[in-house]
Amino acid sequence: MKEDNRSIQFVTRNKGKFDEAARVALDYGIRLSQVKLAKYEMQADDLRKIAIVSAEHALRELGASRILTEDAGLFIESLDGFPGPYSSYVYGTLGVGGILKLLEKIRKREAYFACVVAYCCADYTKCFEGVVNGRISLRPRGGQGFGFDPIFIPDQGDGATFAEMGINQKNRFSHRALAFSKFCIWSNSHYAK
Amino acid sequence: MKEDNRSIQFVTRNKGKFDEAARVALDYGIRLSQVKLAKYEMQADDLRKIAIVSAEHALRELGASRILTEDAGLFIESLDGFPGPYSSYVYGTLGVGGILKLLEKIRKREAYFACVVAYCCADYTKCFEGVVNGRISLRPRGGQGFGFDPIFIPDQGDGATFAEMGINQKNRFSHRALAFSKFCIWSNSHYAK
Repeated sequence: MKEDNRSIQFVTRNKGKFDEAARVALDYGIRLSQVKLAKYEMQADDLRKIAIVSAEHALRELGASRILTEDAGLFIESLDGFPGPYSSYVYGTLGVGGILKLLEKIRKREAYFACVVAYCCADYTKCFEGVVNGRISLRPRGGQGFGFDPIFIPDQGDGATFAEMGINQKNRFSHRALAFSKFCIWSNSHYAK
Repeated sequence: MKEDNRSIQFVTRNKGKFDEAARVALDYGIRLSQVKLAKYEMQADDLRKIAIVSAEHALRELGASRILTEDAGLFIESLDGFPGPYSSYVYGTLGVGGILKLLEKIRKREAYFACVVAYCCADYTKCFEGVVNGRISLRPRGGQGFGFDPIFIPDQGDGATFAEMGINQKNRFSHRALAFSKFCIWSNSHYAK
C-alpha cells in the first residue's frame, strides 16, 4: 500500500464525535479528516452490524480506498438496553428528559456506552469496540460533550458526568476513545509491517 | 404478465400483521401468503424509505418476481413522533408501560398509526399509505391485536382501543387495512388492463 497511512477519512456528521476521535488519533500520529455523508444505517440490535453496513456503503458512495465510520449507543440495563442503537433518534425525540422520566423511581440505574469503529477498505471491514460502564444520573449535569453525556456518570471517574468533563478527561474513559485507540494501535502495527 | 395476479407473497414475520392484511386482501379477491424472512430495515424517519429498501432487499433475497412488504409505526405528537419507525424496537424494550410513563401528567395524547405497504417487482416499487388518527389511552385495555394496540384509541371508533376490537372491527379503521385496500384496488385495476 503506497498511500499515506497516516491520514484517513472519518465519515460522520457529528462534530463532537469527530473532535474526540481526532484527538485520540493524533496521539498515535494519525490524522483524521471529517467527511459529512448522509449516514446509511440499518435497524439492528447489534452495533457491529450497523457499523459494517454503514462503512461499506460509505466506501462505495465516496469511491474511497479506505474509510472509518463508527456507531455508538447508550444501553440502560433496567430499560432492556434502550435506547441502544437508536440513541441518536431517541435523543432527538425524547431527549435527556425522556430518559430521566423513564427512570423515575427506578433505583437500578446501571448503563453503558458502547462504540464500534469500522475500518473499511476494498478487501475487508474490521471492527474495533469500546465499552464504558457507568450509571444514569438523577438530573442532567454539565454543558460539554453531546447527546446523553449530561446524564452518564462513568464508573472510573470521580462522579462527574461526561458533560462535566473536558474532551481530554472524557477521552481517558470513553467508549469512543477506547475503540479509536484500538484502531490506531492496529493501524500502526499493520502498516509498519 | 402471465402469472397468477390473484396471489402474492407478503414478507413479514408478524402473524398479527399478516392476518389483518390477508383478511383485507381476500375482500378484493387477492390471496396473500406469508413469507418469513429476516427483515432488512434501514434507520430513517420516513416509513416510505424504510419500506422501499426492505422490499427491494426481500425481492433480491427471495428471487421472487413480485412481493409485498410493509412498515408501520405509532407517532405520538407530544413525544415529537416517538416511537415512529422504531415502534417495534421500543415495544420490545420499553413496552406499553414505557410509553404510558413517558406520557404521565401529559394531557396532549394525540397520536397516529401510519402504515406503508410496498409492492416490489423487477421494474419498480410502488407504495400505498394508510394513516389512522387517535389518542393514547390512560391505561392498557383489551387483549386482541398486537404491539401498541392496547393503548391506541382511534378517533372514528366508540372509544375502544384497537386491542378491544376484533380483527374485522379494527380493519374498519386501521392504517394497515387502509394501505392494503389501496394496494388491492390498484392491483385489481392494474392487472385488469
